[in-house]
Amino acid sequence: MPFAATILTLYPEMFPGPLGASLAGRALERGEWSCETVQIRDFASDRHRTVDDTPAGGGAGMVLKADVLGAALDSVADARPILAMTPRGQTITQRRIREIAAGPGVTIICGRFEGFDERFFEARPQVEQISLGDIVLSGGEPAALAILDACIRLLPGVMGAPESGTEESFENGLLEYPQFTRPVEWEGRTIPEVLRSGDHARIAAWRKQRSEDDTRLRRPDLWERHGGARDRSASGARHETKDD
Amino acid sequence: MPFAATILTLYPEMFPGPLGASLAGRALERGEWSCETVQIRDFASDRHRTVDDTPAGGGAGMVLKADVLGAALDSVADARPILAMTPRGQTITQRRIREIAAGPGVTIICGRFEGFDERFFEARPQVEQISLGDIVLSGGEPAALAILDACIRLLPGVMGAPESGTEESFENGLLEYPQFTRPVEWEGRTIPEVLRSGDHARIAAWRKQRSEDDTRLRRPDLWERHGGARDRSASGARHETKDD
Repeated sequence: MPFAATILTLYPEMFPGPLGASLAGRALERGEWSCETVQIRDFASDRHRTVDDTPAGGGAGMVLKADVLGAALDSVADARPILAMTPRGQTITQRRIREIAAGPGVTIICGRFEGFDERFFEARPQVEQISLGDIVLSGGEPAALAILDACIRLLPGVMGAPESGTEESFENGLLEYPQFTRPVEWEGRTIPEVLRSGDHARIAAWRKQRSEDDTRLRRPDLWERHGGARDRSASGARHETKDD
Repeated sequence: MPFAATILTLYPEMFPGPLGASLAGRALERGEWSCETVQIRDFASDRHRTVDDTPAGGGAGMVLKADVLGAALDSVADARPILAMTPRGQTITQRRIREIAAGPGVTIICGRFEGFDERFFEARPQVEQISLGDIVLSGGEPAALAILDACIRLLPGVMGAPESGTEESFENGLLEYPQFTRPVEWEGRTIPEVLRSGDHARIAAWRKQRSEDDTRLRRPDLWERHGGARDRSASGARHETKDD
């Protein structure tokens, strides 16, 4: 069975969008995944097909109605994970992406406006509230596209070299090491000598060191979760984190 | 001057993509922002228009060549911020989005394959290495779309109600409070009484409390950065963070 993605959205024309090109697009053509959209507006119950209303208690913007969202979700709900994209959610991780990619597919609900009526989540506890990161989008659609892209590249056969997925950022809790390629010299800068040595043990050691160094410097939060404070000076690692 | 976005990519057909619809699409039609793409491949110097090569030191995948990237960037470089999307970068924040949206525009470089030749960043230190979040994409394009969307919604005139941008997640270091809208009762669940009270002071207090409670429970990392440990029991806040 191919990986089946279903997107609940007010803008079905945004899908597959960029996922119709490149690796994901070719995999879509080969039938290695499928992309179905559900127009949330089709589940509005009034003659004006209203999907949103003003926030209870006042405030700017419009809130997506729980009754419309409930009916839209109930039309597609099955055993697949269900994500609702919202900045109020848990931050997505590469671990969760791997779990989803290993399963039958995913349903993603895209909000717009000021967000979802909270009762939708209370009444449908199987829905995971997920955030892409600490930025606010105009709607869930760009976030859904990014999450789908992250899943699709992990499907069997989509990436050329299967090992590409195992030595990259976040897979071992660290940033990936820096890469270099020809020409050996460019603008007076040469590829580090060790990478041209052919000495696989030295190359592996250099890459591990750079991976650790770059994580500690660029992402002290990741480094601390990785256990950097255990491996090195505990006070040093904590101090770096405070400067984050 | 409208906000000018320039995207360096191997897949220019992915832009504006989803940003051609909805709020961003209407703002694009009105000329409130512009979207230009640069095909990185046009800057390859050999007859095969090669943009990538195998990693020095071995390993899977292909690395984008520094000489091609340098030439592509030099063709467009100006005073705008330049972001390169890479999981090795700093995580984008809503604060940085606001800064970019307040400026003349942005240039975004989208990688593919195993990443960029590191010398590109060494030789062009004005390029910010930026990550969308702790997931790995097949390329920078979906991340660039999300970042552009986050910027565009902040441009003057793009969102209907200007105050929508000020009471939302991350703007004050907290998640936004939950929202509710009509019907008052749905599936046996009613809108919280306080939100129907008309008492603006009580509503504001309830929303502040829910915003703090939800941040502490869902995003202990945000809560700690917000200073939750100072306001409450320091040991309690630290303990929650350990369970992250």
